[in-house]
Amino acid sequence: MRKVIVVALGGNAIKQADEKGTVEEQFKNVETTSSQLVSMLKFGHRLVITHGNGPQAGNLLIQQEGATEEVPAQPMDIVGAMTQGQIGYMFQQTMQNMLWKEKLPLPVVSVVNQVLVSEDDPDYQDPSKPVGPFYSEEEAEKIKAERPEYVIKEVKPKNVAKRFRRVVPSPDPIRNIEYIAIRRMVDSGIVVIASGGGGVPVVYDKNDNLRGTAAVIDKDKAGERLAEVVGADLFLILTDVDAARINFGTPQEKPVRTVTLSEMRKLYNEKHFKAGSMGPKVLACMRFIEWGGEGAIITSLDKAVDALIGKAGTRIVPDPIKE
Amino acid sequence: MRKVIVVALGGNAIKQADEKGTVEEQFKNVETTSSQLVSMLKFGHRLVITHGNGPQAGNLLIQQEGATEEVPAQPMDIVGAMTQGQIGYMFQQTMQNMLWKEKLPLPVVSVVNQVLVSEDDPDYQDPSKPVGPFYSEEEAEKIKAERPEYVIKEVKPKNVAKRFRRVVPSPDPIRNIEYIAIRRMVDSGIVVIASGGGGVPVVYDKNDNLRGTAAVIDKDKAGERLAEVVGADLFLILTDVDAARINFGTPQEKPVRTVTLSEMRKLYNEKHFKAGSMGPKVLACMRFIEWGGEGAIITSLDKAVDALIGKAGTRIVPDPIKE
Repeated sequence: MRKVIVVALGGNAIKQADEKGTVEEQFKNVETTSSQLVSMLKFGHRLVITHGNGPQAGNLLIQQEGATEEVPAQPMDIVGAMTQGQIGYMFQQTMQNMLWKEKLPLPVVSVVNQVLVSEDDPDYQDPSKPVGPFYSEEEAEKIKAERPEYVIKEVKPKNVAKRFRRVVPSPDPIRNIEYIAIRRMVDSGIVVIASGGGGVPVVYDKNDNLRGTAAVIDKDKAGERLAEVVGADLFLILTDVDAARINFGTPQEKPVRTVTLSEMRKLYNEKHFKAGSMGPKVLACMRFIEWGGEGAIITSLDKAVDALIGKAGTRIVPDPIKE
Repeated sequence: MRKVIVVALGGNAIKQADEKGTVEEQFKNVETTSSQLVSMLKFGHRLVITHGNGPQAGNLLIQQEGATEEVPAQPMDIVGAMTQGQIGYMFQQTMQNMLWKEKLPLPVVSVVNQVLVSEDDPDYQDPSKPVGPFYSEEEAEKIKAERPEYVIKEVKPKNVAKRFRRVVPSPDPIRNIEYIAIRRMVDSGIVVIASGGGGVPVVYDKNDNLRGTAAVIDKDKAGERLAEVVGADLFLILTDVDAARINFGTPQEKPVRTVTLSEMRKLYNEKHFKAGSMGPKVLACMRFIEWGGEGAIITSLDKAVDALIGKAGTRIVPDPIKE
């Protein structure tokens, strides 16, 4: 049966950890990723694609800081929107090329997409997400004086010179702002790339206007909100491991296969999944099933197609309806 | 009557000539522009919006060049896509805020958009569009050695130290690549921002794949292609003057009001309109009427609403049908 699937792509879908992020490297990774996505489209599934932007936003922030004498640096929300253009373009072009070769010329298009968060989110009290360049102690002091709104933290051991970094909150996504447009696009048969980098985070200001906020939203949690608003059947998180694992790093380590929401919630509460890594992915999947999704899958990029037919990955399904 | 209108915004819609391009300046200009766009939406018209990206792409290219030791510079096509995200985000957020205040919450969304050009375009033989930073003679030599594919030209008089600049072609736009998606979006009632900066220019490579090319497409000519594919009724170019003028800079100077295509073609052939300035705007308008458009208008941002009802601007209409 043909499904609406929201696919959340991990960082390795665009840039490998050992790469610098040249355009050639990124297009090569995007090509590998796109061939998996195109396979799913060939099965007749309708895809909505979301992706991270950590390395791309990081590079852009370094470039923004590097030329402030000539050119005004743009803030994080603008940089986030820039990476949506950048990464969206690479996927859109690559997938269009592949689809035309397959004689399946589905329209593929990326949208600029904001996601609502709240400054009441507890993460605003103690921001934890490092962004942009590393600073020496001296540079850190200078930045703090120039930009009093920045929170700078020591993020590496004391014996490293460049050990300071700006940190921003990573608030929970509340709502996808462009949900009506995106839903209409999906309904009309367009393959949509949206909510890139977790979406551009926005808050309501005192005049009830949306405005950007310096923050980073977890892309899997934002992807889950996207899956809700497009009424997805499946939510598929593609990462660098083939499944979520319990007792990770012990002799009792083993992959989680198909589990009900209640079974997964038990494992989650037993703290089998690492915060900042597998934890938010599992949480996002559980939310999707709670919302009413049919299945949520965590697997690796190369196992995506197998995971859709239950041959790989971790799959969370709803609890049986009793009485 | 409600019309589908493609609006092409000039550079002053986002950044004034005397500004540096801070985020605050740009949002302020975008707000002024958006209030005009929202007025048109309140009349019930359906808008597709396109915009330039010269200053934004220029700033980003300077930043890309400035940090090459730490971060790989991205090529022009990627930078173009970044500016579509950046500018699209500013308009989208601002228009959404205004529309919600008006209790007219139309969906507004920006798309990443490529435009096909050909390397057989004569402009590839002698590129003329300056882009990115200014170089001294020494810097120009260094860049030429490092990047043999760059064409560097002297663009300022000899007595200026930094007088060299990279030049790229400005080919004629052939086709809007995402036309199916954009048309479906417009048909479903979405206010679409597309073809930003004239679109990301792409060519077919020898394997018949689309790939980016270092070029800049005139945003009015690209806007006209966009107007064709969405089946627009009107094509509206907003710039810094209220009308096209004949005998410009002479005592006989006077504005062109409503003219037929044939009348305008005569004026165009008499070279009343400056190449690189009013010339391409008039050409884009004439193409739109040739294609089958009902009217094409050139006016200033603040006269946009007046021009729609024939009270301002230059308007080109089809020739009367005779036999």
